[in-house]
Amino acid sequence: MKKNSVSQSVIRRLPRYFRYLSELSERGITRISSKELSSMMKITASQIRQDLNCFGGFGQQGYGYNIEALLSEIKTILGADRRNTAIIIGMGNIGSALAKNMNFKKRGVFLIGLFDVSADKIGKQYGDLEVKSSDELETFCRENHPDIAILSLPKTLTQPMAKLLYSYGVKAFWNFASTEIDIDGASVENVHMGDSLMLLCYDIANRKG
Amino acid sequence: MKKNSVSQSVIRRLPRYFRYLSELSERGITRISSKELSSMMKITASQIRQDLNCFGGFGQQGYGYNIEALLSEIKTILGADRRNTAIIIGMGNIGSALAKNMNFKKRGVFLIGLFDVSADKIGKQYGDLEVKSSDELETFCRENHPDIAILSLPKTLTQPMAKLLYSYGVKAFWNFASTEIDIDGASVENVHMGDSLMLLCYDIANRKG
Repeated sequence: MKKNSVSQSVIRRLPRYFRYLSELSERGITRISSKELSSMMKITASQIRQDLNCFGGFGQQGYGYNIEALLSEIKTILGADRRNTAIIIGMGNIGSALAKNMNFKKRGVFLIGLFDVSADKIGKQYGDLEVKSSDELETFCRENHPDIAILSLPKTLTQPMAKLLYSYGVKAFWNFASTEIDIDGASVENVHMGDSLMLLCYDIANRKG
Repeated sequence: MKKNSVSQSVIRRLPRYFRYLSELSERGITRISSKELSSMMKITASQIRQDLNCFGGFGQQGYGYNIEALLSEIKTILGADRRNTAIIIGMGNIGSALAKNMNFKKRGVFLIGLFDVSADKIGKQYGDLEVKSSDELETFCRENHPDIAILSLPKTLTQPMAKLLYSYGVKAFWNFASTEIDIDGASVENVHMGDSLMLLCYDIANRKG
């Protein structure tokens, strides 16, 4: 694997390849040409060849790409072949949606704890996990060392909670609030839904106009 | 406004500027230098000057940017100064979270309808809106012409529902399912949460390694 030679812009496109290729694999398809993938993903075949050539030549002229080999390579590059553990803080609607519907395991992530402050949420069961009180967070983190904290909290509570968790040893944050997490040395990914809505509005304005 | 000269890559960065500048404005701040904005947003001051110069010279040497003027220009470019109406289909956890917590109006979007198929969700109240039965969708769309359908549905129902709504005249879709919507002529934005989680895992793998 030529991991170090893969550029950041290719990396940011890999989850999308992963998504399309997983769906093909789930449908029992084993090979695909860059041309077919191109028409599905609506990017040029030459862009696809360029992207995928960055980490090895799985495409064979006339045979297309081996989907399983490609998926496994993408997983390795993205670190989805590791086991990362995660906890969710804030079991409101977003936290519940994630606990119920998100396919974490497919991405190498294992939910090990759910936390909330509110009495009507503590004790609720999601699969094998029961929502615990946030009072137990410190003990839990020091004993179980979760890799990722998923923060589905109100805007104003997000940064203080991230700081607290960082002090308990959590180094990566997946943030759903419309605010930034600013901690030196932490890994942060934000799901800023509003940004996506604005791009949709842009598209509407420029289609109409 | 030099709308046509703004490149797609700048457009895709504008919602993030909008987010930061809105937060400054809410805190009562009226001016900011590219240097201050640079340290907040963690992008270079020269990139910021380059991006914002695309649509007019609001930065004045020594005075910084006028935040309100910049916000208003960004809103115009992104089409957030228009009035777009939206309906939500699927009032599960994600649909509820959006109806309750999303600041639509700030982005020029007005929720006008909520729909679900399930009897235990129909009739529930969110602010001024009551969840209606999906049976009423066709009549509602033909009478009210919503600009945007927000789809928070299971994966397999998403594409068929989008097609149906398109036939009722809805031309823009904001999709929360981990699948693609493929309709020629429609505007589509996806919130693919899993992609963001994978980028976080990449960051963790490459920090540890």
